[in-house]
Amino acid sequence: MAYSAINLAQKFGLFQEQWTPKVIAEMNDYQFKIVRLEGDFLWHDHPATDEAFFVLEGALRIDFRDGAVTLGPGELFVVPKGVEHKPFAEREVKLMLIEPRGVKNTGEEASERTAPNDVWI
Amino acid sequence: MAYSAINLAQKFGLFQEQWTPKVIAEMNDYQFKIVRLEGDFLWHDHPATDEAFFVLEGALRIDFRDGAVTLGPGELFVVPKGVEHKPFAEREVKLMLIEPRGVKNTGEEASERTAPNDVWI
Repeated sequence: MAYSAINLAQKFGLFQEQWTPKVIAEMNDYQFKIVRLEGDFLWHDHPATDEAFFVLEGALRIDFRDGAVTLGPGELFVVPKGVEHKPFAEREVKLMLIEPRGVKNTGEEASERTAPNDVWI
Repeated sequence: MAYSAINLAQKFGLFQEQWTPKVIAEMNDYQFKIVRLEGDFLWHDHPATDEAFFVLEGALRIDFRDGAVTLGPGELFVVPKGVEHKPFAEREVKLMLIEPRGVKNTGEEASERTAPNDVWI
């Protein structure tokens, strides 16, 4: 059988649009997604699940109601379930998200930032 | 509150031993682990879960009974549950594993490669 590695840089080369996570792999009922972000997201939380952020290129700040964390390339952060957060990137950042299948990017908030779910690339 | 990014390079600087996965973060009941591998592992499978491999430095070959895949930096592969596999690295490779808490590195096989579980760094 032919087995293929999933190359993140190659996958990022297939799209330019921001704020639209693309699924690149699944592990049980979890998904690996890649996304380009730039600018300000909205405050939201995910009541049922933690959410992992892993930065590949650029810098991502995640604001919390009582603090913030900034991630650079090769840095990981897991936002605990139910914790309000707001991602922000001054310049475009490329990152990988890991979370259960079916999690909406904006949590329960509907907005222009709400992206279609389960889009593979 | 003080929030801190988890820097993988910094975490790798804290240990040199090979074949001993270290937990760096949890997401729900899943764990992110980093490990240094060099040489040959043993054939095994994980009957109950998929297992994700993400290479940070070096090259990892994963042999299957009917093929193989080689991962370089920035490449991801998810080994499906129940599929026999054998990791191999000609030179030391640094990688991140993502899998449910409690998964043994050697599956059901006991060997000198069986590592203690749930060791944080």
